[in-house]
Amino acid sequence: MAISKTLIELAHHVAGNVIGDGTVIINRVAAIDEAGQGDITFLSNPRYQRFLSQCRASAVIVGPGAVDESQSTETLNFIETADPYVAFAKIFNLFCPAPQFSGEVSSRAFVDPTAVIGEAVTVLPNAYVGPRVRIGRATVVFPGVFLGEDSQIGSSCMLYPNVVVREGCRLGDRVILHAGVVIGSDGFGYAGAGGHRLKIPQAGIVVIEDDVEIGANTTVDRATLGRTVIARGAKIDNLVQIAHNVVVGEFSVIAAQAGVAGSTRLGKNVTLAGQVGIINHIEIGDGATIGPQSGIPQSVAPGAVLSGGIAAAPHHEWLKVMTLLPQLPKLWSTVRRLERQCARLLSRAEKEFDRDAER
Amino acid sequence: MAISKTLIELAHHVAGNVIGDGTVIINRVAAIDEAGQGDITFLSNPRYQRFLSQCRASAVIVGPGAVDESQSTETLNFIETADPYVAFAKIFNLFCPAPQFSGEVSSRAFVDPTAVIGEAVTVLPNAYVGPRVRIGRATVVFPGVFLGEDSQIGSSCMLYPNVVVREGCRLGDRVILHAGVVIGSDGFGYAGAGGHRLKIPQAGIVVIEDDVEIGANTTVDRATLGRTVIARGAKIDNLVQIAHNVVVGEFSVIAAQAGVAGSTRLGKNVTLAGQVGIINHIEIGDGATIGPQSGIPQSVAPGAVLSGGIAAAPHHEWLKVMTLLPQLPKLWSTVRRLERQCARLLSRAEKEFDRDAER
Amino acid sequence: MAISKTLIELAHHVAGNVIGDGTVIINRVAAIDEAGQGDITFLSNPRYQRFLSQCRASAVIVGPGAVDESQSTETLNFIETADPYVAFAKIFNLFCPAPQFSGEVSSRAFVDPTAVIGEAVTVLPNAYVGPRVRIGRATVVFPGVFLGEDSQIGSSCMLYPNVVVREGCRLGDRVILHAGVVIGSDGFGYAGAGGHRLKIPQAGIVVIEDDVEIGANTTVDRATLGRTVIARGAKIDNLVQIAHNVVVGEFSVIAAQAGVAGSTRLGKNVTLAGQVGIINHIEIGDGATIGPQSGIPQSVAPGAVLSGGIAAAPHHEWLKVMTLLPQLPKLWSTVRRLERQCARLLSRAEKEFDRDAER
Repeated sequence: MAISKTLIELAHHVAGNVIGDGTVIINRVAAIDEAGQGDITFLSNPRYQRFLSQCRASAVIVGPGAVDESQSTETLNFIETADPYVAFAKIFNLFCPAPQFSGEVSSRAFVDPTAVIGEAVTVLPNAYVGPRVRIGRATVVFPGVFLGEDSQIGSSCMLYPNVVVREGCRLGDRVILHAGVVIGSDGFGYAGAGGHRLKIPQAGIVVIEDDVEIGANTTVDRATLGRTVIARGAKIDNLVQIAHNVVVGEFSVIAAQAGVAGSTRLGKNVTLAGQVGIINHIEIGDGATIGPQSGIPQSVAPGAVLSGGIAAAPHHEWLKVMTLLPQLPKLWSTVRRLERQCARLLSRAEKEFDRDAER
Repeated sequence: MAISKTLIELAHHVAGNVIGDGTVIINRVAAIDEAGQGDITFLSNPRYQRFLSQCRASAVIVGPGAVDESQSTETLNFIETADPYVAFAKIFNLFCPAPQFSGEVSSRAFVDPTAVIGEAVTVLPNAYVGPRVRIGRATVVFPGVFLGEDSQIGSSCMLYPNVVVREGCRLGDRVILHAGVVIGSDGFGYAGAGGHRLKIPQAGIVVIEDDVEIGANTTVDRATLGRTVIARGAKIDNLVQIAHNVVVGEFSVIAAQAGVAGSTRLGKNVTLAGQVGIINHIEIGDGATIGPQSGIPQSVAPGAVLSGGIAAAPHHEWLKVMTLLPQLPKLWSTVRRLERQCARLLSRAEKEFDRDAER
Repeated sequence: MAISKTLIELAHHVAGNVIGDGTVIINRVAAIDEAGQGDITFLSNPRYQRFLSQCRASAVIVGPGAVDESQSTETLNFIETADPYVAFAKIFNLFCPAPQFSGEVSSRAFVDPTAVIGEAVTVLPNAYVGPRVRIGRATVVFPGVFLGEDSQIGSSCMLYPNVVVREGCRLGDRVILHAGVVIGSDGFGYAGAGGHRLKIPQAGIVVIEDDVEIGANTTVDRATLGRTVIARGAKIDNLVQIAHNVVVGEFSVIAAQAGVAGSTRLGKNVTLAGQVGIINHIEIGDGATIGPQSGIPQSVAPGAVLSGGIAAAPHHEWLKVMTLLPQLPKLWSTVRRLERQCARLLSRAEKEFDRDAER
């Protein structure tokens, strides 16, 4: 079961160079402050450079020029490579083969007779697979998962415990939904007010394209009409809210507890940091990056880098700031008045100076 | 199964007028940019006015005076009505009849023999109905739902997959709980500190009145003593936190990821936008509206319209603002000093002017 | 089943003194505004002092010197004690004995034959206990709970409905996980960008120590390597996000909807208020307290009390503040210029005064 590689094999795997002894045997990946003999680790965040001198790993993956021959010792060796974090990911994946599943449908799961289950699909006890559901090959359905009628699940998906995919929603291939994710709950739509408020039917679906990963307890609402879309390769963290009719573009990344309101469209490669909030019916351009806790009330241009988060300050000082903040308009007009007064005083002073000079 | 109506029938249904051909057959509701022949759509958000000229729908629901006879064509017709969004909701509901359920209790659900199940109740596989639970007629209990002992569920409720209703909690009629909602988890209450911290028992319940809808993965904690109440017709979005002993008043609306801390009371028709946070032990007056991401540290008067969210700005500019914000008190006192200096200078200048005039 | 105590017995239990009649029989705990004959209640928040005059309870727990003999009546008595809230918790626990469970494993639960189940463990229907799971004595596993392979659960734990504990994670004794909690979901880690983004395997675990309580639908991600740790006695509210490799120190308290990003370490007795966001790779010192909605972008010293939340203001006034906030740097430089101008004017004015005096 255990995997062993020489350092030179690993270096080839990531197109890197060995500094030190390429014949050393590596059989585990470890954190830099916990690694020992036979372990490989990595250094990409300079914050952890200080750990290098005491590092007991057999090998460390480093960036170009980060170390030289003199730093390799009898026990410490290096792989030098363009992007050490990517190399680490590749090597880590090598040492973490995918877990094996039975490829069987448990008799203790409920599978509707009209469901179409692909080859090598694993359905664990207490899962529910509704009428006319289709599941592609090698997908794993954990206990407590609910697949609503006519939903379609691609191949090689991982649906962790208690995931809910409501009726008619569609997942591509290699989609990972972590525990408690809800796909296709009703969007939050009403017309009218008070006792006359009417629920707007939420008759659309959610489409999740290939290679999407969605974190635990995140919710993605179905469209009112049409589709809510999480496009190819998007990665979404835990406890995120994606409202009805939202489009999350390809390869976009959304950190924990962010929320995107209805009908907003995120372009490709957009990054939302944690706890960001985005209003409804706007567009976030390709490649835009939004900092933690920011609020976005209007459309954002492609490539924009925006922030709106406030760094916490000592409480008693912050209280003063908070008392003054609402008075900013008053402060502003006071400064405007002072500007005018100073201008008058300066102009008079100059006249006096001229007059004095004339005397 | 498909539903067809003439435009004039639909206009009657919403007390509107037909502009164009009332005999045209409508059999679907669609979004304005996706509608085609046989479809009806609506225009209420002026942002979408631009879609009207290319609209291929058979009919569009519009507000009073929004269009005139000249805009109706051979293929495009209108229903003119006071509130087009409400009319859209009514017509949309007409075309979306409620889904049908078996009205049977699955042998693969667990139903305690002491539970009392009403007529036409559907309980799907893998649901759990505990001792002495009562469920009213025509309610639907999806897979993975947990109904704790002595909980009471009204009639015509929808309890989506993996909903949890803990012991003793009560739901009215026509309540919709979306997937993963937790009702009646323990409130967050402790006395003392550190190793001497004691859990306060959470011995109360949650009462959810008629016509409430609660979004996916939202949590509503049981009261310490007494009741946490979600009153009649309140609508709550996904991932919202309602703490112990909170009261959410009738017809209030709470958007995604908002949180209300313990014992706070929201009046009737209160609106909380997304990611709002409300402190404990305060009151939010009837009809108050709180903007996105706002923090509410004290009671709010009825009808107040409050905001506290900050619009994100370009990151490098925001960094400067953030450096200066904590220095607002210093800026303020500088301006106060300048005011005094200017006043002195002006007063001296006037005296000089008087003296000059006397000379 | 009902419990009855004399007031003097209760006073002994909390090391307090009776003011009034110690022989009165108490058989219930109630809120101050709802208490009646036979009830005991408490007064610690001065906001509720006004309820005392109309209080119909048989006894009220109060702080030192809060009342005197003259305030006890024929029907109203007091326990005077150092910390009335702690005394209330102790007495409340006395009147709320732990609920009883069957101590049996339901045949409708799935329990892998290799799982090791302690004495008096209750496993309810529809729970899933995977291969090689170990569960300590008297633990309760509710319906819909998932315990992944090789996970370890201590004794006297409460795992409420639909809790997920992924493979290999470990819980100590007396841990309470509320409904929908997810322990051990994959951390949010990728290397590279766009179509070349690689998932970093999340091969570590989560360790939850004794006496931890975690609120409904909260998520705790497993470590990339090593452990995510929730240390002894920590209390975490609903909908909180704890990212991979985070350490939450002993007795720390985290309120609802807060989030802690990857590899950040919280010390002991740290308090995070609701909706706080903490960036990755930093340290929060022992005993630090962070106010509601604050963002923490850098490490925090032990004992620090920080705030960053903004109190909402009337919307139309806030709009003005928000227009001006990004112009704070401009305001600042205007004030700096005015300072220089005033200084020049004052210096000139003094010279003139000197000159005038010389004349």
